[in-house]
Amino acid sequence: MSSPTLHALNVDMSNLPEKQSPEQEFHVTNHTAKWVLNSPDPPSFCQQISGIIKKNLFPQRNSRPSSLSSHVIALLTCIFPVLDWGRGYKASKFKNDLISGLTLASLSIPQSIGYAALANLDPQYGLYGSVVPPLIYSVMGTSQELAIGPVAVVSLLISSMVSKLVDPTLDPVAYRKLVFTATLFAGSFQALFGLLRLGFLIDFLSHAAIVGFMAGAAIVIGLQQLKGLLGISHFTTKTDVVSVLDAVVKSLHTSWYPLNFLLGCSFLIFILITRFIGKRNKKLFWIPAISPVISVILSTLIVYLSRADQHGVKIIKHFKGGLNPSSVNQLEFNGPHLGETAKIGFICAIIALTEAVAVGRSFASIKGYNLDGNKEMLAMGFMNIAGSMSSCYVTTGSFSRTAVNFSAGCQSTVSNIVMAVTVLISLQLFTKLLYYTPLAILASIILSALPGLIDYNEAYHIWKVDKLDFLACAGAFFGVLFASVEIGLLVAVCVSFGRLLLNSIRPGMEELGRLPGTDIYCDKGQYPDVLDVPGVRIIRLNSGNFCFANARPIKERITRWATKEDGKEEANKLTNGIILDMSSVMSIDSSGILALEEIHKKLVSRNIHLAITNPRWKVIHKLKLSGFIDKVGSDCIFLTVNEAVDAFLTSRSVSLGNC
Amino acid sequence: MSSPTLHALNVDMSNLPEKQSPEQEFHVTNHTAKWVLNSPDPPSFCQQISGIIKKNLFPQRNSRPSSLSSHVIALLTCIFPVLDWGRGYKASKFKNDLISGLTLASLSIPQSIGYAALANLDPQYGLYGSVVPPLIYSVMGTSQELAIGPVAVVSLLISSMVSKLVDPTLDPVAYRKLVFTATLFAGSFQALFGLLRLGFLIDFLSHAAIVGFMAGAAIVIGLQQLKGLLGISHFTTKTDVVSVLDAVVKSLHTSWYPLNFLLGCSFLIFILITRFIGKRNKKLFWIPAISPVISVILSTLIVYLSRADQHGVKIIKHFKGGLNPSSVNQLEFNGPHLGETAKIGFICAIIALTEAVAVGRSFASIKGYNLDGNKEMLAMGFMNIAGSMSSCYVTTGSFSRTAVNFSAGCQSTVSNIVMAVTVLISLQLFTKLLYYTPLAILASIILSALPGLIDYNEAYHIWKVDKLDFLACAGAFFGVLFASVEIGLLVAVCVSFGRLLLNSIRPGMEELGRLPGTDIYCDKGQYPDVLDVPGVRIIRLNSGNFCFANARPIKERITRWATKEDGKEEANKLTNGIILDMSSVMSIDSSGILALEEIHKKLVSRNIHLAITNPRWKVIHKLKLSGFIDKVGSDCIFLTVNEAVDAFLTSRSVSLGNC
Repeated sequence: MSSPTLHALNVDMSNLPEKQSPEQEFHVTNHTAKWVLNSPDPPSFCQQISGIIKKNLFPQRNSRPSSLSSHVIALLTCIFPVLDWGRGYKASKFKNDLISGLTLASLSIPQSIGYAALANLDPQYGLYGSVVPPLIYSVMGTSQELAIGPVAVVSLLISSMVSKLVDPTLDPVAYRKLVFTATLFAGSFQALFGLLRLGFLIDFLSHAAIVGFMAGAAIVIGLQQLKGLLGISHFTTKTDVVSVLDAVVKSLHTSWYPLNFLLGCSFLIFILITRFIGKRNKKLFWIPAISPVISVILSTLIVYLSRADQHGVKIIKHFKGGLNPSSVNQLEFNGPHLGETAKIGFICAIIALTEAVAVGRSFASIKGYNLDGNKEMLAMGFMNIAGSMSSCYVTTGSFSRTAVNFSAGCQSTVSNIVMAVTVLISLQLFTKLLYYTPLAILASIILSALPGLIDYNEAYHIWKVDKLDFLACAGAFFGVLFASVEIGLLVAVCVSFGRLLLNSIRPGMEELGRLPGTDIYCDKGQYPDVLDVPGVRIIRLNSGNFCFANARPIKERITRWATKEDGKEEANKLTNGIILDMSSVMSIDSSGILALEEIHKKLVSRNIHLAITNPRWKVIHKLKLSGFIDKVGSDCIFLTVNEAVDAFLTSRSVSLGNC
Repeated sequence: MSSPTLHALNVDMSNLPEKQSPEQEFHVTNHTAKWVLNSPDPPSFCQQISGIIKKNLFPQRNSRPSSLSSHVIALLTCIFPVLDWGRGYKASKFKNDLISGLTLASLSIPQSIGYAALANLDPQYGLYGSVVPPLIYSVMGTSQELAIGPVAVVSLLISSMVSKLVDPTLDPVAYRKLVFTATLFAGSFQALFGLLRLGFLIDFLSHAAIVGFMAGAAIVIGLQQLKGLLGISHFTTKTDVVSVLDAVVKSLHTSWYPLNFLLGCSFLIFILITRFIGKRNKKLFWIPAISPVISVILSTLIVYLSRADQHGVKIIKHFKGGLNPSSVNQLEFNGPHLGETAKIGFICAIIALTEAVAVGRSFASIKGYNLDGNKEMLAMGFMNIAGSMSSCYVTTGSFSRTAVNFSAGCQSTVSNIVMAVTVLISLQLFTKLLYYTPLAILASIILSALPGLIDYNEAYHIWKVDKLDFLACAGAFFGVLFASVEIGLLVAVCVSFGRLLLNSIRPGMEELGRLPGTDIYCDKGQYPDVLDVPGVRIIRLNSGNFCFANARPIKERITRWATKEDGKEEANKLTNGIILDMSSVMSIDSSGILALEEIHKKLVSRNIHLAITNPRWKVIHKLKLSGFIDKVGSDCIFLTVNEAVDAFLTSRSVSLGNC
């Protein structure tokens, strides 16, 4: 039942002498071209748009609930996943969650205070962020492990960008107002992304860009800690390396207190040693987890007993405890910085989501479940909106704390509830105990969390695999380091998309030949063993778009190849036909069609036949629509290169026979 | 000599009962995979870059001239093509060029004066532009037909953009200085593009965008002519429709002179009738060509004899004749508007080149020769640099005059020299005669040239073929009409590139099936007749880039398909294997490789085999580099879908046999 063409395939043309007559065995059986030409129309523009909208706004509506109440229940379960998993929640699970929640809290309290300092806010604002947002997330989120609270990179973003609008040391109240407003914007953007199912937005930061950005941010955050570690009073609000080092050098000339440095470094070494122990023995994961809180307790005792604060050791001093106060009346919508605040909110929203979703996904894939990006966005959005009204700044899923939560064996988001309650109790009872906690300890706790953000191996891997990808990585890294956080992000996004655009429009072409012993036609560069077909040049377009940006160079190269103007050694060979393999061309525009018409015209004027093979769905549709097929005739369209070659060889043998 | 696999092809699988044993006839002969895996490395990043630089900076250096003198001669001939074609120039050709040059001059003089008025300059500056630039172009240009001089769109660009910096009625001297400086910048940019062989830059305005832009510009230019046609003294410097119509309506309420309108319309009708005659009878092409100069002479006589200027008819009055004066000392490099002027120069450079090269190429293709885009850029650049120093504003190849030049039978750029000399003689002798020429006539001459810029048919064609392409066209059109010329351009470029980017990153995928009676696997949508392969799903990626922007949705869709979570009717069919056809994927980045790894992991965990077919050169290279092949094993790489299907069916029959 095989077709005549398939019979023909079994003849190995490479072994046939060129001038003999076995070509006459080939039949012109362009019977598959009818499939190409008679394919149904692809979905129209309007159908595509409405399809995308339907898919995004009304997903998985195949199994419609029958009654209104079941409809409401389905909706509620969709928004609050706790209604789903809560029913199967057992006491045995709670035991695990209690332990992991308490471990989490012991890490969370010192980190939150440290990140609040990084964000130029009083310590309590960091702790507030570990109360309300985790509670909201625990009923709306879909990740079992994600530990919610303030994180380093977002704290840096907030302080570096809001400080440009209002100086936090001169006017802390106005600064706080802007921070809460930016948090509200961030939450609203996140919720909006979730509602409109724009989950793909966070994909626009490429993997390489994130690696570079995180490493740059880690170094910038580390440099910011020099303030606490050296006990410097006056510090720059800028974040680039040059400004910070300049400020540090200036301070070293005036006044700094070595005791801070001594204290900070000792405890930094202590924490790093505990981490080393935790890495060596996975069962001892709790030692690095509680080492920060032990450091805080020990150092506070040391300072309290030695009264080191009178010898230059900077301490936290008094801060306000108690439940999160409302900050609704601190949200500002008619100030002069509204546009800027919205921009800050947008950037924080994207970065916070990127970190949370990346962390959540990697742990979800370990446990083997899927994270719904859109639900996560909605949960993050609502938790930040609620946070902005209860004196929290932008919170998200923290990488280091999520890892601890996972190691401690958490079973569900209940561990977040346990942590939030523990932090709340601490806020009520223990804030006075933190009076003598030295700032240098907070700096060393933050510093100890930074190495996890720098991924040398991944950067080296990117360099090895793809130099241009590495450029995006390096651009983000140096942008963050030497300009600012936003510039670094901008560079990364521009390099990533610029590269994508260049890849899409480069006028790629390759010549094909036949793999010996087969009917498969392959790129001569990739497969150097391929054989030429005498008298026929087979060219495959290597660009997904045949469009205004590359139509002219492609046209010029093809006509140059065809008319032997490229000065290669094949110049003296006779070219009877050009086969243009369009397999890779996904879309064509009016410039591309025009170029095809001109190629055809030029080739016809030189008595060279043109065959177009395997035009894809949208391409053949447009070629038909634009009248191209009517102009050039449907007999130059083939489904496969093989058939086009057959047709050429047959027609030549016929014309030879006529001679 | 056919391979075992090719033998297997002759068995039409569609007719075989599924549960019987003929699968045992298939051999696992993945012998082409070795070709895929052992292909040589593609050119490295550095090799590619140096290749591009070499190709662009030192083109066609295959035939190196042997001595220094022949090297110099080759270089000179390259820069001044006149040295090449000038040697074969004959008296018979000159006769044709003389006639076409004189015809050209008769059209050029009134048009140049009109375009100078459009650019808010005195009449002589338009005429200057028809003297020096054509002379330079005639020795450097490669087009035989292109008629050089001021054109409508560039005049509009200059007036609309420079007027924003300096008001031409309040300070004409400062305005002129900026115009000359912008011209110098435009020329320098053009020459630079030519030297660096950046010819591809002008391709970045897509065909659709140019159609929309030209139509919008034509309407805006037409509206500007209402000033001359109605004899309005005070007019707006803005170019958008709303402002212009507003200014016209206001003027109609105060003072306008119907005689101007009567005179202008009469001669407009006269010119349009001559054009109609020229179109009906191609031999009478000279009638529309000289009708503008006849209109000027007749109307000047009428006004002179009737003294209509005393009844409100606006006339040119005195303007300075003589040779182009030097404007070197009018170039300003330390004014406050330097950056803006450079921007204007850049935009004018691109638009002028786009028009000239488009016009030049279309006539060159009629005569059957090639236009070298880079040489054209160099010639345009030097002619505008020279122009900026001899009181010309930006000039380029005019569409309407080039058509006249072609119809008049020009043979070479000598017709440009004839025209330039004629205009120069007119400047010396006849400027006084133009004292009484009414401004309304200039307006009607410009208006008569505009319909050629509006291409309804092409716009309709674009709409029919591609809706998104039409969006770029409409964006440029309405942008020019209702905002400004630059906004229109910006909209067009953004829409064009945004569309390209969307096309490149949309996570396209299609399922393949086998065409009945063949071994060809095709898209189920495009070819509804294709047959499923039982137990195997064949998925082809439809995106040229498998990268950060689309890796996640592709990964999710594939794992959903594989794990039957997509709720389709095939859900209850057993999937043994997924074949991922990568034929269309031209490049992959680290996110893409990561996604492939996760797909593989997920499928393995569900006991589903993954086969990757036909990875292209760069893709397989990166898969090898990143260690992906080592991780998944080289036995899941195939050259063709057909072989992967064979391997699946064989392995299943073996496992069935084992049961």
